[in-house]
Amino acid sequence: MIRQYFSDRENLTPQDTLPLQGFIDELAFNEQGLIPVITQQASDGKVLMLAWMNKLALQKTLDSGRVTYWSRSRNALWEKGATSGHYQQLLSMHFDCDGDAILCKVEQTGAACHTGRKDCFYFQADPDAKTVLISSAIPE
Amino acid sequence: MIRQYFSDRENLTPQDTLPLQGFIDELAFNEQGLIPVITQQASDGKVLMLAWMNKLALQKTLDSGRVTYWSRSRNALWEKGATSGHYQQLLSMHFDCDGDAILCKVEQTGAACHTGRKDCFYFQADPDAKTVLISSAIPE
Repeated sequence: MIRQYFSDRENLTPQDTLPLQGFIDELAFNEQGLIPVITQQASDGKVLMLAWMNKLALQKTLDSGRVTYWSRSRNALWEKGATSGHYQQLLSMHFDCDGDAILCKVEQTGAACHTGRKDCFYFQADPDAKTVLISSAIPE
Repeated sequence: MIRQYFSDRENLTPQDTLPLQGFIDELAFNEQGLIPVITQQASDGKVLMLAWMNKLALQKTLDSGRVTYWSRSRNALWEKGATSGHYQQLLSMHFDCDGDAILCKVEQTGAACHTGRKDCFYFQADPDAKTVLISSAIPE
């Protein structure tokens, strides 16, 4: 079910704009106040990670141009790179058709993954062999 | 906090493999039994959509090679394209470092978005103008 705000705006075209704050207020934050965020390296399209934002993290990201998430394990704002130096410079932010997901295109400094790998998706299913392959090693 | 199963496997290298079923059993399905799935067009890296799978949807996707989600609005399995013809052929499936997100690389038949647009992320923030731009129109 697409909520009314979004179904009413499906036919908009690239000539149209919407007020940003009103749009953010309509996003489908979940019962914990969070929305999933896909972060993609703009230069090569690599999907780096999936994490979560609350409304404050979203505002901080837009205001600062550095991606800030909500850490569900630490229960705190988490400016990516604040401790590691592996910042994510926001190049563009996109919202989906029913307002329940965000896509950030970024320039990643260093590694997105806490293991030191470029991206977090280093486990790959091999359905035929019924195994999971490791697609990258931690850089030396 | 990275759960033990995943932290114990951070140092694996591309020579290593894991049993697929055991890995799936360790994934962090949420309290509704769901895990977020990023779907990306393999050919050009475009992020098409974000949706959800339960364990059954995940198994069906791996078994059939066609991406199947769990529809949270219909509370039912949702083989993408079953009604629209806009199937997603699974080319590869990837899991992240802490087992709480999936990335599917696919070949998309037709449009990923229910509006007819290629992908669902057609709202783009313009933080300077404090507006949301529409980045694509519904194809004629």
